[in-house]
Amino acid sequence: MKTYLGLDLGGTNAKYGLVGSRGEVLERGRFSVRSERGPDGIIEEMIADLKALRDSAPSGGKPLGLTVGAAGRILTDEGVLVFAPNLPGWRNVPLAGRLSEALDMEVHLVNDADLYTLGEWLAGAGSGLDNLVGFTLGTGVGGGLILGGRLFTGSFGSAAEIGHMVIEPDGLPCGCGSRGCLETIASATAMTRTAREWLAEGRSSAFQGRPDDLTAATLFDMARQGDRLALEVFERVGWALGLALTSIFNILGLEGAVIGGGASAAYEFFLPRMRKELASRVFAVDADRVRLAQATLGDDACLAGAPAMFAGR
Amino acid sequence: MKTYLGLDLGGTNAKYGLVGSRGEVLERGRFSVRSERGPDGIIEEMIADLKALRDSAPSGGKPLGLTVGAAGRILTDEGVLVFAPNLPGWRNVPLAGRLSEALDMEVHLVNDADLYTLGEWLAGAGSGLDNLVGFTLGTGVGGGLILGGRLFTGSFGSAAEIGHMVIEPDGLPCGCGSRGCLETIASATAMTRTAREWLAEGRSSAFQGRPDDLTAATLFDMARQGDRLALEVFERVGWALGLALTSIFNILGLEGAVIGGGASAAYEFFLPRMRKELASRVFAVDADRVRLAQATLGDDACLAGAPAMFAGR
Repeated sequence: MKTYLGLDLGGTNAKYGLVGSRGEVLERGRFSVRSERGPDGIIEEMIADLKALRDSAPSGGKPLGLTVGAAGRILTDEGVLVFAPNLPGWRNVPLAGRLSEALDMEVHLVNDADLYTLGEWLAGAGSGLDNLVGFTLGTGVGGGLILGGRLFTGSFGSAAEIGHMVIEPDGLPCGCGSRGCLETIASATAMTRTAREWLAEGRSSAFQGRPDDLTAATLFDMARQGDRLALEVFERVGWALGLALTSIFNILGLEGAVIGGGASAAYEFFLPRMRKELASRVFAVDADRVRLAQATLGDDACLAGAPAMFAGR
Repeated sequence: MKTYLGLDLGGTNAKYGLVGSRGEVLERGRFSVRSERGPDGIIEEMIADLKALRDSAPSGGKPLGLTVGAAGRILTDEGVLVFAPNLPGWRNVPLAGRLSEALDMEVHLVNDADLYTLGEWLAGAGSGLDNLVGFTLGTGVGGGLILGGRLFTGSFGSAAEIGHMVIEPDGLPCGCGSRGCLETIASATAMTRTAREWLAEGRSSAFQGRPDDLTAATLFDMARQGDRLALEVFERVGWALGLALTSIFNILGLEGAVIGGGASAAYEFFLPRMRKELASRVFAVDADRVRLAQATLGDDACLAGAPAMFAGR
């Protein structure tokens, strides 16, 4: 059986695993990313843990390669982590090359939203599709694109910044410098902010605390209990996602979209409006034929995507 | 010298030519498309004219293949013209196969906006770029995508419907059934409609006729003479194109955009606002590093694109 190693490098934790060629996670491990150790210390720990996993591979065969996912600006072809907002001190680190030398295997470095999309494509909600977009709804809104059965990263390694599609030209300022980006409406941060603002305006709701005490988790609970304000927040999220999907499907003629990330916990609440907006607007595809799906792999998606970077897996 | 045949099938005229491998048009011809002759009659004329051109190829060598561009819904892989709004009676015509048999050569059938983009990429304003979008501003707004150095048509042969990106969610109704599409602002039709509406509202302008008598050509002339109303129309066009480019570049990380079609005659008037909107909003690319360019090949673009459908040209 062909196996691969995967590592998902976050700002506080690194998760790693041994993965079969269809994206099935066979073994798992994790370690704390203590930023005071700096890149060199953290890379040392990666190497030690991955070597142990490599050498203990239960099938007896050595894993054929490693894929590392990280948040930030990455040059996949060069294997360089240019900049990572959650990893202070990491600048232009040739991570793939260092790991490849130490582990004696082919190593790919990709953006974590890209790797999540590859995982859902290989083993999750996007399986079987040649052309697919993945959304991650978290603190921000990220994404990945599979085009023609391959990860597409564009000319500068930076494609699929779908959180920064313009939805409302005169909307709220976004951290990127623009206004009205999808992220200003459909990230977990934005959902909570919208609800707090509506509470502060005095809209009625079952939530009786101070607006600033409302969290995303509370908002999801409120929706489950039928709270009208919470449901209207997700109606707005569905509207924005439906507009984004309309433009993406019209531009790319995709077969499907997978929606994951922490705030996709509210999928059932924003799905109806998202689907309705898409169906009433889209032109280049038949809205009944394309697949809209919630991500199914949860935290495993990045590990599951590891084999997808290897041709002939 | 390697040569190819190209044919651009319009609703009233068909233009064809002999094309060198770098997209240089060596010989040209045309015939009237009389729809009363039906698909069979028109295909007969195509075959006769293309055979004559094939056999007269001045280099002595036989052209290596033919690419046909047509407006409408096309299945490029199957070579089938599914439906063409300007060609009554054409439904599911296996055009590539029929021409291939009659001419004894490889034949590709592609959407005309795709073929225009291939032409500008091979021999025009988009040359040298691996990832590129082409816009055509005409009666509607069409487009094409080159991704990874190849034409990208998506899962259903229908990608690059960039005229139907949503710019203003609550904007004007579009023929596609949505609202606020790019086409409702940036097509020649929309430019003229905007100007007529503003005239009818009594906005001041050098144009003294009845609003309904204003044409696109007049509008371009007015802009050249500094008419404020005309310049504001193109300001709005530049705003919409800048928003569309922002979302496209954020999604695809492209290196450039080429803007052609009849209404690109106003390029100099909408460029400043288009560039400003893009520069102030885009995130995934450096606005100073990407190429924004007016198409350079004019009516030859579709013929010039013919060799681009052949690998190893």
